Amino acid sequence: MKIQPVKGTRDFYPDQMAVRNWIIDGWKKVSLRNGFEEYDGPIFEYLKMFQIKSGDEIAEQLFSLTDRGGRELALRPEMTPTLARMVNQRINSLPKPIKWFSVPRLFRAERPQKGRLREFFQWNIDIIGEDSVLADAEVIFTTVDYLREAGLTSDDIVVKVSSRKMLKAIMTVIGVPDESLMPLYSLLDKRNRLPVDTFEKMLSDLLPQSKIANEVKEFMGCENIKQVENRYGRQETSEIIELMRLLYGMGVGDYYIFDPGIVRGLAYYTGIVFEIYDKADELRAIGGGGRYDNLLKDFGGPLIPATGMGMGDCVLEILLRDKVLLEKKLPKPSLDFFVAYVDIDEQIEEDAIRLAMKLRSNGFSANFSYKSAKLGKQLKQASESNAVKCIIIGEEFKDNKLVVKDMVSGEQNTVNVDKFFSGLTSD
Amino acid sequence: MKIQPVKGTRDFYPDQMAVRNWIIDGWKKVSLRNGFEEYDGPIFEYLKMFQIKSGDEIAEQLFSLTDRGGRELALRPEMTPTLARMVNQRINSLPKPIKWFSVPRLFRAERPQKGRLREFFQWNIDIIGEDSVLADAEVIFTTVDYLREAGLTSDDIVVKVSSRKMLKAIMTVIGVPDESLMPLYSLLDKRNRLPVDTFEKMLSDLLPQSKIANEVKEFMGCENIKQVENRYGRQETSEIIELMRLLYGMGVGDYYIFDPGIVRGLAYYTGIVFEIYDKADELRAIGGGGRYDNLLKDFGGPLIPATGMGMGDCVLEILLRDKVLLEKKLPKPSLDFFVAYVDIDEQIEEDAIRLAMKLRSNGFSANFSYKSAKLGKQLKQASESNAVKCIIIGEEFKDNKLVVKDMVSGEQNTVNVDKFFSGLTSD
Repeated sequence: MKIQPVKGTRDFYPDQMAVRNWIIDGWKKVSLRNGFEEYDGPIFEYLKMFQIKSGDEIAEQLFSLTDRGGRELALRPEMTPTLARMVNQRINSLPKPIKWFSVPRLFRAERPQKGRLREFFQWNIDIIGEDSVLADAEVIFTTVDYLREAGLTSDDIVVKVSSRKMLKAIMTVIGVPDESLMPLYSLLDKRNRLPVDTFEKMLSDLLPQSKIANEVKEFMGCENIKQVENRYGRQETSEIIELMRLLYGMGVGDYYIFDPGIVRGLAYYTGIVFEIYDKADELRAIGGGGRYDNLLKDFGGPLIPATGMGMGDCVLEILLRDKVLLEKKLPKPSLDFFVAYVDIDEQIEEDAIRLAMKLRSNGFSANFSYKSAKLGKQLKQASESNAVKCIIIGEEFKDNKLVVKDMVSGEQNTVNVDKFFSGLTSD
Repeated sequence: MKIQPVKGTRDFYPDQMAVRNWIIDGWKKVSLRNGFEEYDGPIFEYLKMFQIKSGDEIAEQLFSLTDRGGRELALRPEMTPTLARMVNQRINSLPKPIKWFSVPRLFRAERPQKGRLREFFQWNIDIIGEDSVLADAEVIFTTVDYLREAGLTSDDIVVKVSSRKMLKAIMTVIGVPDESLMPLYSLLDKRNRLPVDTFEKMLSDLLPQSKIANEVKEFMGCENIKQVENRYGRQETSEIIELMRLLYGMGVGDYYIFDPGIVRGLAYYTGIVFEIYDKADELRAIGGGGRYDNLLKDFGGPLIPATGMGMGDCVLEILLRDKVLLEKKLPKPSLDFFVAYVDIDEQIEEDAIRLAMKLRSNGFSANFSYKSAKLGKQLKQASESNAVKCIIIGEEFKDNKLVVKDMVSGEQNTVNVDKFFSGLTSD
């Protein structure tokens, strides 16, 4: 009988777990230093909650289950509905702005492919209760702050920004009917993943007047915000200009460009939208987000402004590997002490074990060999486990002394056991 | 429309998330210093995998789901089957002994009650490939090492130890038929949660010969290993005596007692078994474990010895709260810098924001007020967010100077901006 893991899930052996921990620890550290507090919700919620405001794509990708009480549940495919539910529950008691982050494990029942798995981790940061563009800028700054911390530079990544408010104003000027706006956003969002022919066919199906369809394509070709203003006038361009000015001031001026092709498929965005891409444009989006001022209301709460970002671990890890950053940045596992012993009598092994346990109780990482072995072999094991120091217990232990060997310099000193312990300082 | 979380799940608001993080960080830290490496598997696996060797109790408590491909899956109710699958997959390449830990989120479709939820976290440590009692002792030591680290003493908790090998030998001597052993273990495991009458009825149903049933009850009354030896002779008692000697040597002699009532319900245990309880005996078991030498073989791998421990977060948290340890030990959230500004012109707010972002980019936690407010109000906000230092930007910023206020001593110094940044050292 051979048991397999389920397709699209991952086993995290220690070497892979170290990568996951490094990515998640980085997300947490940067969130905290940017003033976000951590929260989390359950892995599953009522199915209907995920159907309220998600794009069709996500609703189709739910892992649903029915519990013994007949309740229809689903594994969370995204964090925002849970965030909206939790914030709405305590909307009156939470001080504003609410700056929260989370690193949920998420689930999408889709065909696994490069950078997209059925089970993954996603960093989420959100600012709720603040309508100024400064909040959008802080979300983007925090995102870049992490990517820089992970070793990525403006040669590696780019944040593409646009605005749903501006897009809506311009699409209306062009003549796109109101009822076609959402399907159009969804189509524009998919544009780069579709063959040109397919996209054009779908666009003309949606907008049968070729003049309107062509205007849409022309807008998508604008290369900067100046071109947009020259062609369409100041149609809600002020917020995106303000955003770029703030980002420049925050010291991340090299990291963003305006891109009218950034739309975000999900129905709930209302203002600034952005996506982060590898500069070589070989991978899917590393992350994205934007302003969603109506979402909490749609989930039964008050009308309160909100803006946020999500970044999965899969595409990010591919990029970090491509840029050889894992090798450079991943902390090496190490051991404070390896306790070795010279096998002179039966007691000495137990003395070594006791000493290792005492070191652990004092807050140090310590290990020993399970099999009685020659000292040389134990020292090899110490070296393989990246021990900083090796304690050697032998004849001199009868006089309450032990040998401390520095594994880097190779230097050895014989010291009194009590002095050794009183001299230890844990980090 | 009001959306509720699913019964038996938890929302982790920042204050509750801090507790969860403190518990999980403690588990991780102690695992690492005891020489365990972290691993994890998927949240769901094939349903049949969880039905192989689990006790009936767990199999009944599965959250199952069917994916689009018609595969029957289940949310993991315990970690051991995944561990067995993962180790078996790489059995030849992994150096032995394998010392691994994990902190999986687990799911059981049972009625929520005190200390038992449908979604929880569980610390798992396992040593695979080592058959000596030393491995069992190291697992128990590591467990106690964590509990002591969390602030619990031998006045608060006790590890009750026994041996399945000894139990089997004695039950056989008593005359319990082989085929009744597993149902008997399952019944003995439930004993303390059943009314006396119910237990006696079930016992005599299982063992109709009252002489045998009475002998079982008498064995369950033994108060120490000496009594067991006096009554039944040295029936496999050597390993438990060795275990207690090793634990004593490791410096956790105050933390264990022999208890013949410790059986563990699950079918897969083969040797030393143990459970950790609060000393007042008011709560369910905090954790438990033991040796399971046949499990990897049952999952399609080789016959290889293994021993391990699992501890959930729910009962543990109740105990930590009861003992007022959360208040004492939980790290307070703090902020390295709060950046306040005197609202003299439009530029100054942006200067303050830029400075905060620069501090963050340098690795410090920093925050600022979103709303322009009087300096006093900003200082109050700095104090409320436990800021260590407050930077104040005012008139002197035009001369490239800022004020640093120590929030503890109240001392204020005006310093040059460049000198301020060059003098910063991140931890």
